[in-house]
Amino acid sequence: MEDLFIIKIGGETISNNEVFQNCLKAIAQSGKRIILVHGGGKKVTELAKILAIPQNMIEGRRITSAETLELCTMVYAGLISKNIVAGLSAQKRLAIGISGADLNCIISKKRESTPINYGFVGDILKVDHKIFEDFIFKNCIPVVNSISISEDAELLNTNADVIAAEIAKAMSVKYKVHLVYCFEKNGVLKNIADEKSVIPVISKSDFTQMKDTKQIADGMIPKLHTAFSALYHGVEEARILKSDALESYFKNEKPGTEIKLH
Amino acid sequence: MEDLFIIKIGGETISNNEVFQNCLKAIAQSGKRIILVHGGGKKVTELAKILAIPQNMIEGRRITSAETLELCTMVYAGLISKNIVAGLSAQKRLAIGISGADLNCIISKKRESTPINYGFVGDILKVDHKIFEDFIFKNCIPVVNSISISEDAELLNTNADVIAAEIAKAMSVKYKVHLVYCFEKNGVLKNIADEKSVIPVISKSDFTQMKDTKQIADGMIPKLHTAFSALYHGVEEARILKSDALESYFKNEKPGTEIKLH
Repeated sequence: MEDLFIIKIGGETISNNEVFQNCLKAIAQSGKRIILVHGGGKKVTELAKILAIPQNMIEGRRITSAETLELCTMVYAGLISKNIVAGLSAQKRLAIGISGADLNCIISKKRESTPINYGFVGDILKVDHKIFEDFIFKNCIPVVNSISISEDAELLNTNADVIAAEIAKAMSVKYKVHLVYCFEKNGVLKNIADEKSVIPVISKSDFTQMKDTKQIADGMIPKLHTAFSALYHGVEEARILKSDALESYFKNEKPGTEIKLH
Repeated sequence: MEDLFIIKIGGETISNNEVFQNCLKAIAQSGKRIILVHGGGKKVTELAKILAIPQNMIEGRRITSAETLELCTMVYAGLISKNIVAGLSAQKRLAIGISGADLNCIISKKRESTPINYGFVGDILKVDHKIFEDFIFKNCIPVVNSISISEDAELLNTNADVIAAEIAKAMSVKYKVHLVYCFEKNGVLKNIADEKSVIPVISKSDFTQMKDTKQIADGMIPKLHTAFSALYHGVEEARILKSDALESYFKNEKPGTEIKLH
């Protein structure tokens, strides 16, 4: 099977123009088959403030009112999506910015309103891997944002880490899939105040132990769960690294933290 | 050759939810091969006001500062694009929302800054008809917004009427193309205050005469120029009609005004 890289970049990466451009450069120049998944929550939070749209987060997940959904659709599927496509085009890589609503490629289900009402938030039911295969076959990078669509054709805000993992799972029927989460730290850290304390490998049993002894930051827990779930479902490699380290990753230098089942 | 319909809808149509939904229903239920082109300037103007981004229009064309370009990218390529895609999906028609930057499908050139500096505004150099053909072949409606990309990979705001006409021209090598501009009036009116005064056909010589005698509204002149240009370049039919009349148009009832060379 051929290698396919699912690269997820978040709001912190996108909001720092130098890091963002370096990231796009590393992706474009790698020459690899890539699907890029992005969030952009930081920009949503900034705009919501100016527009006086109240924002609430629970465990890092955004409560999505109708107004916030509009804002997310504008920022993720419009502003950030097209700027990434243009950035890759500047580096001579063909790209297409798509949401899960486009071609119905990511179908989700609106989350139950109990115990917490997250509003217009979706959990993924199905990824249409053929659509992504078509674009990859044309040597094009699908740039996927975190708006999905329900079976009733309602737009829903969806966690970008989960979208990346679900695409990774769906694509692993055909490719040797590498799931890479880029973020602002050097990897999973033993001591959150020490950027040098990167843990090179975390196994499932390490993770269980770290959770039990509260050695792991709260925000990292869902990301790691998602990575383990991807590995359980046939994904070859899962890794968490600093956005700046993407070039080194493509050179096979193994930066950041690898998540492994055993 | 097979028929292909390039339907352009504007901000007035999009801002009236009933008209908008009826429009999408007519498109979806027609069963025709369609490319939908949309603007959405009304929403940009509204948001610019709230965000205190100054807006200037010259002859109906928006002066596009860097901030306004961000706003246009959010509204056209994000909010409106994905809501159209979801609306068509609700009517069981597959659609994909794309800008000219996606797959570099519409390449433009930044307009010279003299005599008027329009800012980040592009004039179209090239439409990649193969990309549109691919989507149409898959029975998918490309939903095209008015953000294009320069050869230097810069996003540029582009007039949606012109985008529709340029796509129409490019597609006419392969299809019998019908270019349809939907707007808020019944057609080109003899008397702008009388919705019943629709002119059923305007030829090039009628147009010249109407311009000379100032019988035609200023805002209509560039739209008609664009339509004539499309006809000169191989487009089969050009028509201007009320958005509500789209269903009747697909039933071959010839609403609105037909633009004809002779």
